[in-house]
Amino acid sequence: MSAPLVGIIMGSRSDWPVMQHAAEVLERLGVPFEAKVVSAHRTPKRLYDYATGAEARGLKIIIAGAGGAAHLPGMAASMTNLPVLGVPVAATVLQGEDALLSIVQMPGGIPVGTLAIGKPGAINAGILSASILALSDDALRARLAAFRAAQTDSVPETVE
Amino acid sequence: MSAPLVGIIMGSRSDWPVMQHAAEVLERLGVPFEAKVVSAHRTPKRLYDYATGAEARGLKIIIAGAGGAAHLPGMAASMTNLPVLGVPVAATVLQGEDALLSIVQMPGGIPVGTLAIGKPGAINAGILSASILALSDDALRARLAAFRAAQTDSVPETVE
Amino acid sequence: MSAPLVGIIMGSRSDWPVMQHAAEVLERLGVPFEAKVVSAHRTPKRLYDYATGAEARGLKIIIAGAGGAAHLPGMAASMTNLPVLGVPVAATVLQGEDALLSIVQMPGGIPVGTLAIGKPGAINAGILSASILALSDDALRARLAAFRAAQTDSVPETVE
Amino acid sequence: MSAPLVGIIMGSRSDWPVMQHAAEVLERLGVPFEAKVVSAHRTPKRLYDYATGAEARGLKIIIAGAGGAAHLPGMAASMTNLPVLGVPVAATVLQGEDALLSIVQMPGGIPVGTLAIGKPGAINAGILSASILALSDDALRARLAAFRAAQTDSVPETVE
Amino acid sequence: MSAPLVGIIMGSRSDWPVMQHAAEVLERLGVPFEAKVVSAHRTPKRLYDYATGAEARGLKIIIAGAGGAAHLPGMAASMTNLPVLGVPVAATVLQGEDALLSIVQMPGGIPVGTLAIGKPGAINAGILSASILALSDDALRARLAAFRAAQTDSVPETVE
Amino acid sequence: MSAPLVGIIMGSRSDWPVMQHAAEVLERLGVPFEAKVVSAHRTPKRLYDYATGAEARGLKIIIAGAGGAAHLPGMAASMTNLPVLGVPVAATVLQGEDALLSIVQMPGGIPVGTLAIGKPGAINAGILSASILALSDDALRARLAAFRAAQTDSVPETVE
Amino acid sequence: MSAPLVGIIMGSRSDWPVMQHAAEVLERLGVPFEAKVVSAHRTPKRLYDYATGAEARGLKIIIAGAGGAAHLPGMAASMTNLPVLGVPVAATVLQGEDALLSIVQMPGGIPVGTLAIGKPGAINAGILSASILALSDDALRARLAAFRAAQTDSVPETVE
Amino acid sequence: MSAPLVGIIMGSRSDWPVMQHAAEVLERLGVPFEAKVVSAHRTPKRLYDYATGAEARGLKIIIAGAGGAAHLPGMAASMTNLPVLGVPVAATVLQGEDALLSIVQMPGGIPVGTLAIGKPGAINAGILSASILALSDDALRARLAAFRAAQTDSVPETVE
Repeated sequence: MSAPLVGIIMGSRSDWPVMQHAAEVLERLGVPFEAKVVSAHRTPKRLYDYATGAEARGLKIIIAGAGGAAHLPGMAASMTNLPVLGVPVAATVLQGEDALLSIVQMPGGIPVGTLAIGKPGAINAGILSASILALSDDALRARLAAFRAAQTDSVPETVE
Repeated sequence: MSAPLVGIIMGSRSDWPVMQHAAEVLERLGVPFEAKVVSAHRTPKRLYDYATGAEARGLKIIIAGAGGAAHLPGMAASMTNLPVLGVPVAATVLQGEDALLSIVQMPGGIPVGTLAIGKPGAINAGILSASILALSDDALRARLAAFRAAQTDSVPETVE
Repeated sequence: MSAPLVGIIMGSRSDWPVMQHAAEVLERLGVPFEAKVVSAHRTPKRLYDYATGAEARGLKIIIAGAGGAAHLPGMAASMTNLPVLGVPVAATVLQGEDALLSIVQMPGGIPVGTLAIGKPGAINAGILSASILALSDDALRARLAAFRAAQTDSVPETVE
Repeated sequence: MSAPLVGIIMGSRSDWPVMQHAAEVLERLGVPFEAKVVSAHRTPKRLYDYATGAEARGLKIIIAGAGGAAHLPGMAASMTNLPVLGVPVAATVLQGEDALLSIVQMPGGIPVGTLAIGKPGAINAGILSASILALSDDALRARLAAFRAAQTDSVPETVE
Repeated sequence: MSAPLVGIIMGSRSDWPVMQHAAEVLERLGVPFEAKVVSAHRTPKRLYDYATGAEARGLKIIIAGAGGAAHLPGMAASMTNLPVLGVPVAATVLQGEDALLSIVQMPGGIPVGTLAIGKPGAINAGILSASILALSDDALRARLAAFRAAQTDSVPETVE
Repeated sequence: MSAPLVGIIMGSRSDWPVMQHAAEVLERLGVPFEAKVVSAHRTPKRLYDYATGAEARGLKIIIAGAGGAAHLPGMAASMTNLPVLGVPVAATVLQGEDALLSIVQMPGGIPVGTLAIGKPGAINAGILSASILALSDDALRARLAAFRAAQTDSVPETVE
Repeated sequence: MSAPLVGIIMGSRSDWPVMQHAAEVLERLGVPFEAKVVSAHRTPKRLYDYATGAEARGLKIIIAGAGGAAHLPGMAASMTNLPVLGVPVAATVLQGEDALLSIVQMPGGIPVGTLAIGKPGAINAGILSASILALSDDALRARLAAFRAAQTDSVPETVE
Repeated sequence: MSAPLVGIIMGSRSDWPVMQHAAEVLERLGVPFEAKVVSAHRTPKRLYDYATGAEARGLKIIIAGAGGAAHLPGMAASMTNLPVLGVPVAATVLQGEDALLSIVQMPGGIPVGTLAIGKPGAINAGILSASILALSDDALRARLAAFRAAQTDSVPETVE
């Protein structure tokens, strides 16, 4: 695979069943990526190294998934100028409402583009990454257009 | 001004006091943009024309702000492959909680990168747009880095 | 069956187990209907054709069910003058709270008559449709009255 | 004025500043209506008489607005087969969230078509009533179409 | 059994697994009661007869359990001067939050003494009824005191 | 005034503007009462003395109002067998939602009859107290019936 | 074991599966503790004795876990000057949201240091207790540092 | 003043009107402290230096206040073994609910002792700090006991 353009990070291995949907979309669209566990709380040094080094390593976008007091996306965004996308994971009894607010309610100055809670959000983080990269990659733009068109075609009109 | 790269749309003129913060950030960062009122509900034809024509007109990103049952960002996203960013506006007695959920909880397949409710979200939609465009614009990347550095420097350490 | 008077649409085949309760009520009350999958987000063109063509095709009422950022009812309502009824489906971890707010919090100008989340709402969308059509259909009015009376009679007084 | 076709009822005089928006829309669309205070809790007998007698008096639709534990719409619906539309009023510190759930979460069997909290909901109750009555009134259908078209035309494209 | 002093009513037979806990407490404390299904929405006439006739039949307290848009307790309270206690039942996807607000947020003038959602609330409706009746029944007061003392004694100090 | 039958307690003097509405109702209905500040948190000894001594002093009912983590009603209920009624006060930025849940969600075994948040709840705590005492006081029952009838009569039918 | 420094109390034996995680952390860190069932509501006298006697018995910290209208932590805090930590337990259909608000929203004057709902909160109550005791116990400080370092090392970088 | 034992940090100068209540309590109790603005998002390097250096500088406790996606307390806790207390500030339209969940819902392993939203929470962060430091400072323990006793004495029994 080519050098990764998208870095998928998550606070815990237990987030992978959700976040792998971002990976699958990127794979299907031919966008090189990497996926790693980086915990804002338990491995703050790893996060610091990851976020501050991302641009130099050639990453273009960071997708960060986390649950509960989900600080990973916002802290990554505070340490890089790359676009950061956040995926709230329903990891606690509050079913992702905590993660959603922790990710989306960032103060003015440090943006995190937030997607839906759980699997739909992970899928969409992958697609949005592709649409961003497609702005300067005509071949990807074509693959994305085909993906979207296939998606439209795959919606049956009959209810069962 | 050059041809706009970012299209800021909003459901109502009453959203402008919030959405102008996105415009101000883009102006400060030297990103050409346009700002228009497009109502998903009251002017669905205008939305259709805007969203389906955006890419051909040279727009790279759509920022959509809306309140209540905020359908504008998601419907714009359904009709373009460009990245769409959504800003929930606190336009009803529910204080933007309705708009936040209406914008962020998109189904897998159609992403909207959602920012915080209100002014911080509008500011961040501007910054995130710049960080996306900076991926293929070195001068903008430098301006963004300077903006972020100035922001860091402007935080006083003393409490009053 | 006669030409349909009620069009039941839903964002995804996975909404059918809920929305079929609307269909069952209409069938029981002798109201001709059709049921189709129309996704606001994945098939916006299909939605446009459906909503703008509904009145000419002889439909009197549209019942739209959707989950998450449930834009289908509101967008249908924006493109027709027919009465539109919305049924929030509990399709995400937020258990329909997102769909309820996305459907009910429409801005002044574009109404969606919203029913309860899930099965009770689908049943009631069917009954409300019948009560609307009964305003100019004496036979239906009588069937509806009988249905309501039977419902009253079917409530046992004993607790087990 | 002709005999009223729509009965607007509300739990308290203090709901009138909200509910008058329904009245204004009906007046503008030429739909005869009446407006009365009927409290489910403080005047249950008045409610019983109103709801059970509505159909015989020639009413076609009941619009009921209420706040807090808003029982008026649902109880009216339990005592008539006419279509009942409900408008949640933000009358308590919970800002209408209580009224919304009390009105919309009706059990299967007794529908209330629920609109948005407050003024937008009242406006839309008026419009939805007109769209229902227009199903068998061609002149009203034309007036409604004109109203909706004027509404679309009145949305400015410029943000200020 | 003596003539009932407490009337337990519920909106549906499906509420009995919750409401039977009120019955069990009353039985254990020797308070005569009756239990019936009375639906505010599907059998409003039965509710009217029950509530307006309760005092004359010798009932002292009404315990009403309901879910969703739970109108039963409040409507019973509107038609009697007897104390009415309400038990929210978690009957919808909103897990009783809807029922709680529909029951507790009554307007000034018509009180419903509201207990917790579900089984703890049903138990407590039974105990609170006994504490009310004990105000003028010394033997019951003694039984209640013994019940409460036994409850205190039954709490083990060890964790397993 | 006769010896008080109802004890109104509240966690802070700042709750009095709300709780005085309970006092006014009791005064109007001729029910002797007392009103005191008793803080569960800042004066736990005073609460212990008040609650454990209430029955012996001749009190029949305790009305407790509190905001935030509103422990006063539940702790009073844990130390007396008298009926305890709770009034949530909107004393924090959460607007009484915290107080409501802290008061109503009591575990099985220790009931608090909970009323609405704020002024309507305080009024209703007064009325419910009267309805409880009226069970063994014919004169009060008559005054209560008159109060309720006057309330019904005072609801105007016209909207303004 | 040495005399306990931390007292873990909980409202019910059913809270032990959650609260045992606090015990396990303390055991692993070599902090002597005790664990008891103390119900604020069903055994208020036991709570009074426990809380007022804790300091004299040599306890340094109280960890209190409770669900629903969780009064145990706040009432313990009202009767001791020792630090009190609170753990909300998801014991009702509201999934711990009730317990969280009942514990954290204490009025100014009586603090409860509140942790997350459920198991993570119990674990963290143990760790926070250790970090407090470590302020004057160098050996414990070293054990805590090792525990935290091991925790950091145990986070794998690979996603599966 | 002696070397600070408590470090009060906050995300923005606009948090000082809330956080100064922590400072006032510490001053009144004779606990030396410092107060600084440290933004997790805009000055992550300053936060890193502050948190990792706190223990070596002699700080015993960190009090961190923040609003919105309040990451400051949790990130400070991730970089020190000192006890960290968090104060949610109501800085957005969600009135502190976002900050509360972002602070309290920390994952197992990294505790933040969370206090109430706003001023009561700031006061209590000061008191809890004192109660922690008092565990090894007899003079402070005496001052704290006097403070608590004075607080108890200052609660008037009369309601106005």
